[in-house]
Amino acid sequence: MKHLLGLEGMSATALTRLLDVAETYKGVGVGDQPKRDDLKGKVVVNLFYEPSTRTRMSFGLAARRLGADVLDFSPSGSSTAKGESFIDTAKNIEAMGIDIVVVRHSSPGAPHMLAKYLHPHVRVINAGDGAHEHPTQALLDIFTIRQRLQRIDGLTVGLIGDIMHSRVARSNIHGLTTLGAKVIVCGPTTLVPSEVERWGVEVAHRLDDVLPRCDVLNLLRVQFERQRSGLFPSIREYRLLFGVDSDRMRKTKPNVLILAPGPINRGVEISPEVADGPRSAILDQVTNGLAVRMAVLSELSTST
Amino acid sequence: MKHLLGLEGMSATALTRLLDVAETYKGVGVGDQPKRDDLKGKVVVNLFYEPSTRTRMSFGLAARRLGADVLDFSPSGSSTAKGESFIDTAKNIEAMGIDIVVVRHSSPGAPHMLAKYLHPHVRVINAGDGAHEHPTQALLDIFTIRQRLQRIDGLTVGLIGDIMHSRVARSNIHGLTTLGAKVIVCGPTTLVPSEVERWGVEVAHRLDDVLPRCDVLNLLRVQFERQRSGLFPSIREYRLLFGVDSDRMRKTKPNVLILAPGPINRGVEISPEVADGPRSAILDQVTNGLAVRMAVLSELSTST
Amino acid sequence: MKHLLGLEGMSATALTRLLDVAETYKGVGVGDQPKRDDLKGKVVVNLFYEPSTRTRMSFGLAARRLGADVLDFSPSGSSTAKGESFIDTAKNIEAMGIDIVVVRHSSPGAPHMLAKYLHPHVRVINAGDGAHEHPTQALLDIFTIRQRLQRIDGLTVGLIGDIMHSRVARSNIHGLTTLGAKVIVCGPTTLVPSEVERWGVEVAHRLDDVLPRCDVLNLLRVQFERQRSGLFPSIREYRLLFGVDSDRMRKTKPNVLILAPGPINRGVEISPEVADGPRSAILDQVTNGLAVRMAVLSELSTST
Repeated sequence: MKHLLGLEGMSATALTRLLDVAETYKGVGVGDQPKRDDLKGKVVVNLFYEPSTRTRMSFGLAARRLGADVLDFSPSGSSTAKGESFIDTAKNIEAMGIDIVVVRHSSPGAPHMLAKYLHPHVRVINAGDGAHEHPTQALLDIFTIRQRLQRIDGLTVGLIGDIMHSRVARSNIHGLTTLGAKVIVCGPTTLVPSEVERWGVEVAHRLDDVLPRCDVLNLLRVQFERQRSGLFPSIREYRLLFGVDSDRMRKTKPNVLILAPGPINRGVEISPEVADGPRSAILDQVTNGLAVRMAVLSELSTST
Repeated sequence: MKHLLGLEGMSATALTRLLDVAETYKGVGVGDQPKRDDLKGKVVVNLFYEPSTRTRMSFGLAARRLGADVLDFSPSGSSTAKGESFIDTAKNIEAMGIDIVVVRHSSPGAPHMLAKYLHPHVRVINAGDGAHEHPTQALLDIFTIRQRLQRIDGLTVGLIGDIMHSRVARSNIHGLTTLGAKVIVCGPTTLVPSEVERWGVEVAHRLDDVLPRCDVLNLLRVQFERQRSGLFPSIREYRLLFGVDSDRMRKTKPNVLILAPGPINRGVEISPEVADGPRSAILDQVTNGLAVRMAVLSELSTST
Repeated sequence: MKHLLGLEGMSATALTRLLDVAETYKGVGVGDQPKRDDLKGKVVVNLFYEPSTRTRMSFGLAARRLGADVLDFSPSGSSTAKGESFIDTAKNIEAMGIDIVVVRHSSPGAPHMLAKYLHPHVRVINAGDGAHEHPTQALLDIFTIRQRLQRIDGLTVGLIGDIMHSRVARSNIHGLTTLGAKVIVCGPTTLVPSEVERWGVEVAHRLDDVLPRCDVLNLLRVQFERQRSGLFPSIREYRLLFGVDSDRMRKTKPNVLILAPGPINRGVEISPEVADGPRSAILDQVTNGLAVRMAVLSELSTST
């Protein structure tokens, strides 16, 4: 694997291998566990065209714990978002001898463009491209499910919320279905794209019908900036229809696993009791994000 | 000592120990003096919700000179300032396996909330919480006084300016009185809170009365953004009543020590001749800030 | 050499030595080439008062590849741009025990002021001061010319565009003429300062007259923010008069070398075919920037 651009098209073998490798990175550099040298002498650039703190920190920390130097590059201003200058920026980064580029961009396909134009020795990791994919987020979601429920195959996973604009949803759908899970997407009719059924998932619009069938509920973040689009119900309506609180938890399977990509909106898509409750794996996701990203960085860096 | 949240309530023994340890860190990593390994493998996060360059750099540099990895996390936007998401942010940082959080926040008590909610293995250092405390600033002030005047006990220290809004004043009052100094606070009546007398300090409003009695004058920074509050005199008036210039220096003890937390407003609370004169220890304070912060980082990191 | 403030007044011997040293740093830390220890234990501060990503990254990466710790310090707001607080900021950085300051500032002479006021053990590198000098950019331009054409002496170099506001032009003029090149500056009459002839360069205003005579064309970046000044032609007019495209390339010497300090405006000062064509050394410039900056950092750091 030279780049990690998305989970679409990745084989079950490749996905499972990444998850297995990630197991070996759990806790590296944490507490008394020493750092490793996998990326010693390598330079990783966080090229984030959209604001991010968690994902940027997670990649930065993962890279440092493997011995890499990390540079943050957060261009501002719309001019830098243009296709041409984006490639020029990337070519400059390549010319500086960067080894790995972690890129987040509002345009779907931006990481693929990098992978195409950059010299083959530069590795590209998609940290989120528009509403397209966010593969490391889905990998850490799947890793967390496997850790808690010991398998993916045969599980039913509900992705709840704004499917239309969610790169997290897309990457999860590809990864989960490839590994044999059944995926149900559930959200307002205006926010579930019609093409989604082609990906082999079931579409639902009433959360209460879906709850009893799911082994996992992944509660997508409400993006308040979407409100203006007119597609989105009010916050109050969203909470009533799709928010998961203690009442709704009574309708789930007893051992349901609650995931959320974060940062969560307490009291909107998830209530505080659920977020902090025993079925929530939200903080495990954050911890596992480090292991998954270390695995990806290491795998890309050693592939030829 | 697991956290450094404030100097209020800290014993003279604990304060003196920190100052003594700081002596051993003077110059570490500067010039030909090698760095140390105290924090090797540790990750320090600078979690600054208010803008800062000096304090953030000082902590960052102190941590690096002890071998730590440092991540800067400067959330922007008011939404992150809400109580709930603040704790969620902190929980995420914990989940990433951070060892030490250096936090600056506009809400008094924010560092205490972190210390309460985070796993006990995470250490918290208060780098300024609202108008409450800024303990490392006061420690470096006190360290500088002790370095120059060889003692704290029995000295008279004047804190001049906006006492009401100053976390530096509060931390200095607690630290200095615990170590046996007499503290006189002196500022406009609108900017000296009535509760201050309960802390065992003397209140004055005419600087010229106070000058002959002080061994140390700590000139608090005029915060221009407070002007709008209506509590603040004009700049010209402030300078006339509380600015320290060559004329006023003739009324002080001959060996008076001039401190200022900086960044100073030349020509307002302090004149250039005084700031750059022989009685000024302003740059010593900056240098000593490194030693004090290395001592704090190291002490917290080795405590169990 | 204690500081690198500009190329004006630097001897041919000193310039050649820097270029020769830079040769020895080519590729350090890139791919499988290990990093070096030249700056081990040193702290470099990037003190950038103007926005920059490439130059800041290039210095940061150069310093890290030599083993230094790098701190980024990007003050915002106009208050920090005032002379007094600029020196206070610098004095603070000195007091923290910084070894090398890389400074970019909108005021010509700001780096010289630092070099004057800071303790002699602190080294200062000018990373661009107003429209005055940008010495490392000119050094990497000259390094790239020498690499491609094997000499500087006797070459004719055209600097094309907004000479008036270009620190890159000024530093190139000083460096190139000192090393025996003939320099022709060519731009709109409103954008070529009258004093430029005193520096021993030829002035031209019609690019097509100049093209056949040049061994090198250095295409200065069009600064769109200058448009408002009224001195600047329209973008369309600029492209017609001074833009280099395939048509114009037919009028050049066959082996002409195309340089551009970047970030380039494709379709304005340079067409995409030329930027990406075989005569372009634009990406070599970026790569060579690392070697040149490592050489400067190392030379300053070892001088006494």
